[in-house]
Amino acid sequence: MSKAMLLPELTDHGVMSIHKIDARNQFGLSNQVNVAGELPLTVEVDGVVLVTLMTLGTQPEKLVLGYLRNQTLFDSLDQIKSVSVDWGKNLASVVTLNGDGLKDVDLNNRTVTTGCGQGTVLSCTLDKLYDHRVVKAPIRQSDIYRVLGSIQSFNRAYRAAGSVHGCGLYKDGQVVAFIEDVGRHNAMDTIAGEMWLEDIKGENSFFYTTGRLTSEIVMKAALMGISVLISRNGTTHMGQELAEELGITLISRAKSRQFIAFNAENIIFDEKPE
Amino acid sequence: MSKAMLLPELTDHGVMSIHKIDARNQFGLSNQVNVAGELPLTVEVDGVVLVTLMTLGTQPEKLVLGYLRNQTLFDSLDQIKSVSVDWGKNLASVVTLNGDGLKDVDLNNRTVTTGCGQGTVLSCTLDKLYDHRVVKAPIRQSDIYRVLGSIQSFNRAYRAAGSVHGCGLYKDGQVVAFIEDVGRHNAMDTIAGEMWLEDIKGENSFFYTTGRLTSEIVMKAALMGISVLISRNGTTHMGQELAEELGITLISRAKSRQFIAFNAENIIFDEKPE
Repeated sequence: MSKAMLLPELTDHGVMSIHKIDARNQFGLSNQVNVAGELPLTVEVDGVVLVTLMTLGTQPEKLVLGYLRNQTLFDSLDQIKSVSVDWGKNLASVVTLNGDGLKDVDLNNRTVTTGCGQGTVLSCTLDKLYDHRVVKAPIRQSDIYRVLGSIQSFNRAYRAAGSVHGCGLYKDGQVVAFIEDVGRHNAMDTIAGEMWLEDIKGENSFFYTTGRLTSEIVMKAALMGISVLISRNGTTHMGQELAEELGITLISRAKSRQFIAFNAENIIFDEKPE
Repeated sequence: MSKAMLLPELTDHGVMSIHKIDARNQFGLSNQVNVAGELPLTVEVDGVVLVTLMTLGTQPEKLVLGYLRNQTLFDSLDQIKSVSVDWGKNLASVVTLNGDGLKDVDLNNRTVTTGCGQGTVLSCTLDKLYDHRVVKAPIRQSDIYRVLGSIQSFNRAYRAAGSVHGCGLYKDGQVVAFIEDVGRHNAMDTIAGEMWLEDIKGENSFFYTTGRLTSEIVMKAALMGISVLISRNGTTHMGQELAEELGITLISRAKSRQFIAFNAENIIFDEKPE
């Protein structure tokens, strides 16, 4: 993205919807518990419905941008004039520069995936994927631990209500962006939206997610130029195979000092536990 | 389903794909770890592609039937002549009795959800949902504990490799069906397929899932006639609201003797912990 490029106009209609709901526990006692919001947000491009995402809603404009980017529906941010979110209508209206919508997209050819989260990849994504092989760089174990040590300060909705996923982008062990959403795909797409807007490249960064490292998460990492995925959860066989082909290192089951790493020959073990 | 009805012809091409993959742990040591398979399965109806599901693959024919049922694409099982799974082509071919496919389905109007799992609901589902309000029945706490006590005997893939979801259908505290898949939606749909085939009604049954109780899981429960959902995980606000409207009791955070129940006025607390 060149510095002279006009950024899309965005509304700023994020919400943080934690609800207090009556519940009963195993002793039969009534109490109020926090429950995370899950809001439908229908995305229209030049007035044509593309998809409805279910989201916590904290950064809906970036979610929409990142969704469009990770579905490879736009090549460049300057093709998008504006994104306006209206929770009264549960609608995100995307207006393109030319006003001619997504004319080349075959919406009938979608892959529905295992993902926690939005779980749909338009098939065109797969064709473009191998243009996005990432460059493997050395990974310090001490940086993995810096990432893991920082998460507790960012997962606000999780600590309040549980049942949400968190994702973070880290450079030099420092958080660049952190987002929570009811689906791990939405959280990842929202960070993709922020990276697109702020012109943040994925090189030399780590991506942390609370969700599993399935094939689609690995695909999104490749599209975002990210070569290190860290998860407190596991991977699937297709996630691992795809990561190997694309040059992505997977740090799975990462909790406290433990992890199980795949495609791990570039890890420098500089902080082995006793 | 009348007893005279012809059941669809099904292949029996289930696979249990656990892979041994080289990995490195936090000590830098190489070892082999089990990773769950994640296989693409493209569903065609009368030769027209409907969707690609990512699945562990243990009961693909029932998965396809349950997917079709929970998307409310067929009213009756006798409209389906056969389901043939061919892993060589990653293809499930559905042949309808009349051979005229899904002519009334608008594939462009899909909702992509928060779900772990397939996460897409064709919008027609929502219109039909309120025909499926369930009848609330008393729930014994002791039956909840019988369900929770039984799970360990069924979650084979989870114990071998992790990173899969499990779902079980229980009547009188006994398991009727249990299935694991990489996505919680696939697992639930596979049980829906089995219920359809075996003419098992959802009344007076409990449905256990390891996944979160999001809106779409609650919708599927209603379609399957199930009025009690138990999860070791939490719920979202939309999941809880929809459950309240549809008459479904949610037993969330159910682990060992603990739980947090919503829409819980029908629980009989006959086995309170000390």
